[in-house]
Amino acid sequence: MPTLVMKFGGTSVANLDRIARASKRVAVEVAKGYDVIVIVSAMSGKTNELVGWVDETSPLYDAREYDAIVSSGENVTAGLMALRLQEMEIPARSWQGWQVPLKTNSAHSSARIEEIPTDNITAKFAEGMKVAVVAGFQGISPEGRITTLGRGGSDTTAVAFAAAFDAERCDIYTDVDGVYTTDPRITDKARKLDKIAFEEMLELASLGAKVLQTRSVELAMRYKVRLRVLSSFEEPSDDAGTLVCDEEEIMEQNAVAGVAYSRDEAKMTLISVADRPGIAAAIFGPLAEAGVNVDMIVQNISEEGRTDMTFSCPTDQVVRAEKAMADAMEAGHINYHDLVTDNGVAKVSVVGIGMRSHAGVAAKMFASLQAEGINIKVITTSEIKISVLIDRKYMELAVQALHDAFELEKTA
Amino acid sequence: MPTLVMKFGGTSVANLDRIARASKRVAVEVAKGYDVIVIVSAMSGKTNELVGWVDETSPLYDAREYDAIVSSGENVTAGLMALRLQEMEIPARSWQGWQVPLKTNSAHSSARIEEIPTDNITAKFAEGMKVAVVAGFQGISPEGRITTLGRGGSDTTAVAFAAAFDAERCDIYTDVDGVYTTDPRITDKARKLDKIAFEEMLELASLGAKVLQTRSVELAMRYKVRLRVLSSFEEPSDDAGTLVCDEEEIMEQNAVAGVAYSRDEAKMTLISVADRPGIAAAIFGPLAEAGVNVDMIVQNISEEGRTDMTFSCPTDQVVRAEKAMADAMEAGHINYHDLVTDNGVAKVSVVGIGMRSHAGVAAKMFASLQAEGINIKVITTSEIKISVLIDRKYMELAVQALHDAFELEKTA
Repeated sequence: MPTLVMKFGGTSVANLDRIARASKRVAVEVAKGYDVIVIVSAMSGKTNELVGWVDETSPLYDAREYDAIVSSGENVTAGLMALRLQEMEIPARSWQGWQVPLKTNSAHSSARIEEIPTDNITAKFAEGMKVAVVAGFQGISPEGRITTLGRGGSDTTAVAFAAAFDAERCDIYTDVDGVYTTDPRITDKARKLDKIAFEEMLELASLGAKVLQTRSVELAMRYKVRLRVLSSFEEPSDDAGTLVCDEEEIMEQNAVAGVAYSRDEAKMTLISVADRPGIAAAIFGPLAEAGVNVDMIVQNISEEGRTDMTFSCPTDQVVRAEKAMADAMEAGHINYHDLVTDNGVAKVSVVGIGMRSHAGVAAKMFASLQAEGINIKVITTSEIKISVLIDRKYMELAVQALHDAFELEKTA
Repeated sequence: MPTLVMKFGGTSVANLDRIARASKRVAVEVAKGYDVIVIVSAMSGKTNELVGWVDETSPLYDAREYDAIVSSGENVTAGLMALRLQEMEIPARSWQGWQVPLKTNSAHSSARIEEIPTDNITAKFAEGMKVAVVAGFQGISPEGRITTLGRGGSDTTAVAFAAAFDAERCDIYTDVDGVYTTDPRITDKARKLDKIAFEEMLELASLGAKVLQTRSVELAMRYKVRLRVLSSFEEPSDDAGTLVCDEEEIMEQNAVAGVAYSRDEAKMTLISVADRPGIAAAIFGPLAEAGVNVDMIVQNISEEGRTDMTFSCPTDQVVRAEKAMADAMEAGHINYHDLVTDNGVAKVSVVGIGMRSHAGVAAKMFASLQAEGINIKVITTSEIKISVLIDRKYMELAVQALHDAFELEKTA
């Protein structure tokens, strides 16, 4: 039998009615002949309740106990969905992480999956089980303790299962109906994409599109797991949602697949840094240690042995970044004349694997922003992405202009 | 190190404050030098919430899924208490049933404990762990599924751990402060017992005293586990609560330890049953199959090959009992002239191992009831118990009269 992995997030299993609704989706796939592995999250709100108790009991908690506690929410959902499916006369059973077993390392609360042996579940499929309902987000450490996978852990669980069981597809049910060319709240011309390449999804995910966690997309790309993102609140159909897949599956391709943005960025410039070998490490090492997520980095040309170094980070990390730089200066590790912070910028990016074969994407982007009178403060590029920092007040305008310029409302 | 087992029920760990309070009790015992095994229930209300979801999802549920779901409540408490103890700088960790492992048979939702290997927990004590916080009520089946132990499962878990680890004592923390000579709501002369023998506790438990489940007392008696029942809401002291122990530990003994009662009893009499070998089996077999808990049984003398057979059962099982008898008659298995039911009786019992060596306990009991004008309808006796059925309206009066007659307000 072909195997299908289906993942339902917290809002899709928020209560018994929604669990019943999700179970109906599963039944549709079982009827098509699939052996189905369902990955479930905790009922929405339950994990927060548990985390609240942990925080109140022990602010600096033992992550092993945290994991043992918060993983219980997924176990409840898995059992309830198995029961619901049984009521629909579908042979189903629940699996907790240690029963599979989903083996992880010992990095509690942010464990990495090491192995998913398929024997136990495969044996039950052979005995007639049609659906394995697996508690997501959790595994077992080499020491036999319960681990959790951290942020995005349930999506990652689903992709890992799809890879281990060589599933035909991994369907991620969520509260949005797919991946859009841009945020529909910014322009009503935003269009749902039928397909998007792994690389594009990865860029969009890391640019702040909340549909899929970066980590799960990385894993899907590495193992070529076809991912479908779709809404659990719409009627099912075969072309629902967005398929995240290998670019070879995407026949025709716009130069640009989507426009992403990140609102709360800060631009920081170290003025007149002594320019010597190792200076970048001397700056960005302390920033990383201080937990500052540096995004864009631009170094100006060097004159008389000094240069300006500009980088961006989220606005809520500016204070930490300033302290890290002042400390590094005081310790004699770096030397600069001034640190200038601009808290009022936003990042806008265009993403598309098509730009590898379409010339002039950057030129069109800059011209389009210029036509709106928007000044570009910093530019960075990758093979399939161009990002700019601009004044935050122009962010929506820039997104709309770029969406129009690349005609994203039209299919390829 | 000597080992102590402490068990906290649902009301004793109902919220974070109570978990903190229970943890302080544990700390007191750790300070005395014990290695402590704590058995915890789910926070009160949590199990009911989970059971409600199961019932709503699947009225005739798969007990394996039921067990996987409801056991999650105990796991949460175990983790939270471990964290709380760590905050008090006491080395503690949580243990779920499968981690111990607490091995049971496969009778899901009412599993029997088969074995508790001590290696894993003992190894951690050797490494410096001072408290093992074990999720009560749960184990693992030979198939690797989670099992639960059914009614009274947490008390039973605690006693089983105390037996396996050869603990010095098993302290059961609950919302009452001990075992009383009788229900204090019926007479304010009721006195807390410092000690009570296993056999007496067993009789009292099966007579409806809600302090301990019969099953846990049986287990304690078999393995000679000294059980202490005490309140988690009072200040701790060495002589708090009631010690349930071997009778040899109880130096002086009243003839009667306590007076128990059961309010909602029914007396049923099969009039003129054909008296032949096997008739008792023909009557009580069908009653057992119908789920009727027959308590007292009295057979009158036989005349002309016929006899009257009287038995008692809870009032809410009368309809089932009547149907079972009618069906047995129709099937030709038994033959009787009439079935007379009296729904208005109660059972009052005096219990005490001392009555084995004190003559005249029954005589004193009957005289005392007669003095109050109370008619006795049925009498049964065991070595350490005398029970009577009387009109329900006299129940409180009978309990008070017997408590006075045997001077239970005085210590031995």
